[in-house]
Amino acid sequence: MDFSLSEDQQAFVDSARAFSEKMLAPNAALWDAEGIFPKEVLAQAGDLGFMGMYSPERAGGLGMGRLDASLIVEELAKGCTTTAAFITIHNMATSMIGNYAQQALIDAWCPELVAGNKLASYCLTEPAAGSDAAALQTSATKDGSDYLVNGSKVFISGAGETDALVVMLRTGEAGPKGITALLIPADAEGISYGKKEQKMGWNAQPTRTISFDNVRVPQANRLGEEGQGFAIAMKGLDGGRINIATCSIGTAQQALEEATAYVQERQQFGEPIADFQATRFKLADMLTELVAARQMVRLAAYKLDSDDSQATVYCAMAKRFATDVGFAVCNEALQLFGGYGYIREYPMERHFRDTRVHQILEGTNEIMRVIIARRLLMEGALEVIK
Amino acid sequence: MDFSLSEDQQAFVDSARAFSEKMLAPNAALWDAEGIFPKEVLAQAGDLGFMGMYSPERAGGLGMGRLDASLIVEELAKGCTTTAAFITIHNMATSMIGNYAQQALIDAWCPELVAGNKLASYCLTEPAAGSDAAALQTSATKDGSDYLVNGSKVFISGAGETDALVVMLRTGEAGPKGITALLIPADAEGISYGKKEQKMGWNAQPTRTISFDNVRVPQANRLGEEGQGFAIAMKGLDGGRINIATCSIGTAQQALEEATAYVQERQQFGEPIADFQATRFKLADMLTELVAARQMVRLAAYKLDSDDSQATVYCAMAKRFATDVGFAVCNEALQLFGGYGYIREYPMERHFRDTRVHQILEGTNEIMRVIIARRLLMEGALEVIK
Amino acid sequence: MDFSLSEDQQAFVDSARAFSEKMLAPNAALWDAEGIFPKEVLAQAGDLGFMGMYSPERAGGLGMGRLDASLIVEELAKGCTTTAAFITIHNMATSMIGNYAQQALIDAWCPELVAGNKLASYCLTEPAAGSDAAALQTSATKDGSDYLVNGSKVFISGAGETDALVVMLRTGEAGPKGITALLIPADAEGISYGKKEQKMGWNAQPTRTISFDNVRVPQANRLGEEGQGFAIAMKGLDGGRINIATCSIGTAQQALEEATAYVQERQQFGEPIADFQATRFKLADMLTELVAARQMVRLAAYKLDSDDSQATVYCAMAKRFATDVGFAVCNEALQLFGGYGYIREYPMERHFRDTRVHQILEGTNEIMRVIIARRLLMEGALEVIK
Amino acid sequence: MDFSLSEDQQAFVDSARAFSEKMLAPNAALWDAEGIFPKEVLAQAGDLGFMGMYSPERAGGLGMGRLDASLIVEELAKGCTTTAAFITIHNMATSMIGNYAQQALIDAWCPELVAGNKLASYCLTEPAAGSDAAALQTSATKDGSDYLVNGSKVFISGAGETDALVVMLRTGEAGPKGITALLIPADAEGISYGKKEQKMGWNAQPTRTISFDNVRVPQANRLGEEGQGFAIAMKGLDGGRINIATCSIGTAQQALEEATAYVQERQQFGEPIADFQATRFKLADMLTELVAARQMVRLAAYKLDSDDSQATVYCAMAKRFATDVGFAVCNEALQLFGGYGYIREYPMERHFRDTRVHQILEGTNEIMRVIIARRLLMEGALEVIK
Repeated sequence: MDFSLSEDQQAFVDSARAFSEKMLAPNAALWDAEGIFPKEVLAQAGDLGFMGMYSPERAGGLGMGRLDASLIVEELAKGCTTTAAFITIHNMATSMIGNYAQQALIDAWCPELVAGNKLASYCLTEPAAGSDAAALQTSATKDGSDYLVNGSKVFISGAGETDALVVMLRTGEAGPKGITALLIPADAEGISYGKKEQKMGWNAQPTRTISFDNVRVPQANRLGEEGQGFAIAMKGLDGGRINIATCSIGTAQQALEEATAYVQERQQFGEPIADFQATRFKLADMLTELVAARQMVRLAAYKLDSDDSQATVYCAMAKRFATDVGFAVCNEALQLFGGYGYIREYPMERHFRDTRVHQILEGTNEIMRVIIARRLLMEGALEVIK
Repeated sequence: MDFSLSEDQQAFVDSARAFSEKMLAPNAALWDAEGIFPKEVLAQAGDLGFMGMYSPERAGGLGMGRLDASLIVEELAKGCTTTAAFITIHNMATSMIGNYAQQALIDAWCPELVAGNKLASYCLTEPAAGSDAAALQTSATKDGSDYLVNGSKVFISGAGETDALVVMLRTGEAGPKGITALLIPADAEGISYGKKEQKMGWNAQPTRTISFDNVRVPQANRLGEEGQGFAIAMKGLDGGRINIATCSIGTAQQALEEATAYVQERQQFGEPIADFQATRFKLADMLTELVAARQMVRLAAYKLDSDDSQATVYCAMAKRFATDVGFAVCNEALQLFGGYGYIREYPMERHFRDTRVHQILEGTNEIMRVIIARRLLMEGALEVIK
Repeated sequence: MDFSLSEDQQAFVDSARAFSEKMLAPNAALWDAEGIFPKEVLAQAGDLGFMGMYSPERAGGLGMGRLDASLIVEELAKGCTTTAAFITIHNMATSMIGNYAQQALIDAWCPELVAGNKLASYCLTEPAAGSDAAALQTSATKDGSDYLVNGSKVFISGAGETDALVVMLRTGEAGPKGITALLIPADAEGISYGKKEQKMGWNAQPTRTISFDNVRVPQANRLGEEGQGFAIAMKGLDGGRINIATCSIGTAQQALEEATAYVQERQQFGEPIADFQATRFKLADMLTELVAARQMVRLAAYKLDSDDSQATVYCAMAKRFATDVGFAVCNEALQLFGGYGYIREYPMERHFRDTRVHQILEGTNEIMRVIIARRLLMEGALEVIK
Repeated sequence: MDFSLSEDQQAFVDSARAFSEKMLAPNAALWDAEGIFPKEVLAQAGDLGFMGMYSPERAGGLGMGRLDASLIVEELAKGCTTTAAFITIHNMATSMIGNYAQQALIDAWCPELVAGNKLASYCLTEPAAGSDAAALQTSATKDGSDYLVNGSKVFISGAGETDALVVMLRTGEAGPKGITALLIPADAEGISYGKKEQKMGWNAQPTRTISFDNVRVPQANRLGEEGQGFAIAMKGLDGGRINIATCSIGTAQQALEEATAYVQERQQFGEPIADFQATRFKLADMLTELVAARQMVRLAAYKLDSDDSQATVYCAMAKRFATDVGFAVCNEALQLFGGYGYIREYPMERHFRDTRVHQILEGTNEIMRVIIARRLLMEGALEVIK
């Protein structure tokens, strides 16, 4: 066992941190307040390879493992939770194209996507198919060499501003085996976008409903085989869960650093509030939980990189644990700031709002428990999930 | 012992509920989104007596007990947390005038205040004196028959929109005994208001800094005696803590009702999510904690009404417990709504944002623990605090 | 609303406290260590009326309400958790006889039972029918004017030392409606007792399996009607849940008092550990939760006394909340004692062991959640459960 | 980074598991019930190298790292928490001799100690010096080439049955710098042992007070230099904290495995209780927390093995987190067993009692927070503690 970063990994971290501190952190409050989607900065992230981290090399990506990517994302999340999260969603969608599309489709899309000049959305959730994703109904029916797509997707990150939509669609029987993934250009005829959702946080990326009305998509735009879409989506989600968990720990790390600095400055009763034991114990627990959460994320990423047969359950555990810890740490940090924690002049309330959705996204934490328990109750599970 | 509402109490509840459902609930989302301070509605609340609930009758108030007032406030909070909270702050400040001012001052101010035609703010906190309120430095120095007031107050609810400021000021020695309370007209010469704070929630009431630059205030505007201000402020806060705790349980009740309805409608995996045991257990715990919190609030109010020698510690316990439970219930309710809990189209995220500040206001929950522990460690305390 | 004890109630409390301090507290450690069932002391409790608190007067009982009884039980539990708990079980079984038996049976048994000269056990649980009590299989089949009873009951408090068994038996169809309650003399022919269970706590009362092999019981020994047994048992359990919840708060109160004294004596780092803020905050939370738990118990008892239609759900909430809080407080108190908390020389580890079973008994806390949620989801429930 | 066990590590695990399953698990209940200290089995553990795991090779030990040792201890703890814990204490004391004694002393003692034929105790705590260990007062004063030792130590694991005592003594100034470590033969003249403490758990090892009355100890028995004793003791404790944390996760793993099996067998309401979602969610959380705890322990052990400058804080975090999780998992597992969890026929209540003391031993979890917070507030800490 080895818990240290390699030199390469440290170099990624340093590069990501420099970018995060320079390009994200100074702007995050403004992007949040004004709902700005920072496309230029995303392109700059692309220059550093961050828009194609684990896209395969044949797609122009860095072909990184998930663990390496997680190190980068953690640094990005320290600067701006929402932008880091969008970057990971883009990476997920892009890597699905890079991994499952035919080379011609890859060549048509991936160079611009990994460069961050074009952006991708991942389209799974529907109004009546949230936790129960396999119940999705938006359909793609064959029409000659094309599919005709009808229905709608909700809560789509980036929708209205992105270029490529990776969409899970019903092409066959009910349930997971009748689902197929297509890459649909965001401006295809018949696509319309809902109003920008007013969200509590994650304001630096737009979220919209997407409606498909007889949208014509060539079969060549299919990712993988017919009926393989749900498997592709779920595999993407394993990584997506590591990503969102990582966004939580990066944000929580930032909040902890800010709170630690604040309690040493802020005086009450004639001394820094860092001198009060209750403050100290709270900080100690925040750090401890956060270190544990980081380990869970890295362990899950390692399992995914190793093609471990239990990777899905490690990802589910990491997502559940790290997003709960991430929010709890931000919540405690807000409290340490007192009244200042509640106003927008300080970053605490933004961290708090932004991390809250991580307990819901990419499978709610309740669904994570469903996944964990199902596997845990199989014969021999406790031997191999440690 | 008797845990039932009297007929009078039930009538108050009914009246408050009707007002809340008609005048507050339909507007709360808009007031939050647009930062509207609903002065007309406050005047209508005044018509029902809600702006002078526990102001004494000689001030035109209803002279109610805290327990009765709490029953009303809970209903108001179900409709709009922030407006209910402002109403309680106004009541607190107004009752301080009614209880401690000379009759002439009462006559000059209270009729309009209890009618809700004029509004009052409570001004205690300073930049360097938050939890350590007794360290406040804003000063009132005698100048003939007047005081000259200098310094500033922060996080003042209603500031910029209210008419009367009840201000705690340093008139003597350091510490609590050198503090005096004055009623200062909000438009007195030398007063200036800071920008409206951008807060995470409580958006239906403005919060501002108030600066005093040689503001001249007649001695006749003093509440109580010189040096009595801190005692007056703290006594006000006992009731204030019941109020804010009540706002938490009212909001949590509303969130629980909404979540209970939602889980019976929302279907996933072919059944209402209310059929999932994890949902049910969560609701059961939410209700249980909420009932306990309500009892704590009523017990504290009863103690305050009875002039119980331990009333302060009951108020501190109620405030700590009920605001923690209130936020926790709203947080769980948000989670039950899934992605819909995170968008402004649904009220969950507003409840969540609004109740979060209750753990900070009127003495942070950490300060509540300081108060409780101090008393608990006195000889014989555990005999009388039950 | 009125949260004060009446003079009568205070007198009960004083009397129970005197008995508890004199007869229970000095012996509790020994009874625990040596597994002594203190029958003489139970008879002395009978002299004070504590063995027939809420048995009706026609049975020689005091005919008290549940709230009054709870005040007494809390004091008893401070002296010895296990003995107090047994007293409540005896009271429950005895009151079932007093309430549901024919007068002749009452006359034959109740005078000695309410005097504490004879003791009663409540026999519901079976090996395969724990949480699912209505699935019980031990049967009573009619044979002339008698029943013949066959089967076995487990985890029966007092078994082997008690005189009267109140037994729930299958006389008809499957499910709750086929169950009938009989009073069976503990020494009836065909009854055999298993070995005394080695338990983690509750050692001052024996627990055994009871086996019935063609035990002949006259029909005159029936409590209520045929098929009414489950309803009788559940009604008993409502009160039983208040009882066990009360035992938790009494014990926790004792533990809190002991811990509060200890932290003021115990010095580390040159000062009493009561001076450390983390100690103080812990104590503050223990007290707050405990006060809330006590209120929940009293509220539930009041509802039961008032024949409130929601009494069952209040009892379930009180049981869940108070037994969780009771154990948590004892656990924290143990921790405050450090290593001394772990050894038998100090009472902490006994409180900890004894209260742990309250989360399991009289319906596990999981079953409480099932009960609460079922009711909570009914139309209009949140209006009437507050 | 690499989270996999090497082949060597897997071999250690397999060997420890075989020993644990054969020699510990079948006897643990009996040893607990009868307070048996299994010396023969300890000698057999010695045959496998487990009594000198990280003692240096010059002392006949295996010279293992802490991470490797942790893998072994986890397996041992699955079989018997208390015996595993004693083995780790013996290992700690023995390794202190092996690392700090002169070779002659090593030669005289270590062969028998690492063989498990003789046993060692670690003697730090005193009645008035628990959490504040540096306040210890038991003294060693020079008398020719000897020390004369006077005073007493409390809560000494193994005392009365062990052969070698590693004792921290006051030889100089107050505070940590005046402390020296001596190896004292357990049968030295002037040593007397208190009664065997009656503990809630950890019954398979005796705990006693040791009194020293002018006990003469040669200077050659000193470990390290004069004044170095506290540093030696604390360094030992870093590893000791990993050990005790490991005992928690091993026991919790065992409890989780047993509970997982039980819920699939136990039927209520016509189905295995494993089918109830609340059961499943509970199991999922138990597993998740346990995996996180294991990672924390391994991370800390790795840091200690790497001589990381922050190793102490990682050990403190691992101890706090893993012992809290370990107890919580055992507590939940007990609950899943219902009434059966509370009786000695099943192992749950033993796991629960045994793990409870881990939150107190080797520095209470409150002291862990003190350690963590002190370091966390140093400049740059959050950069290096991740």
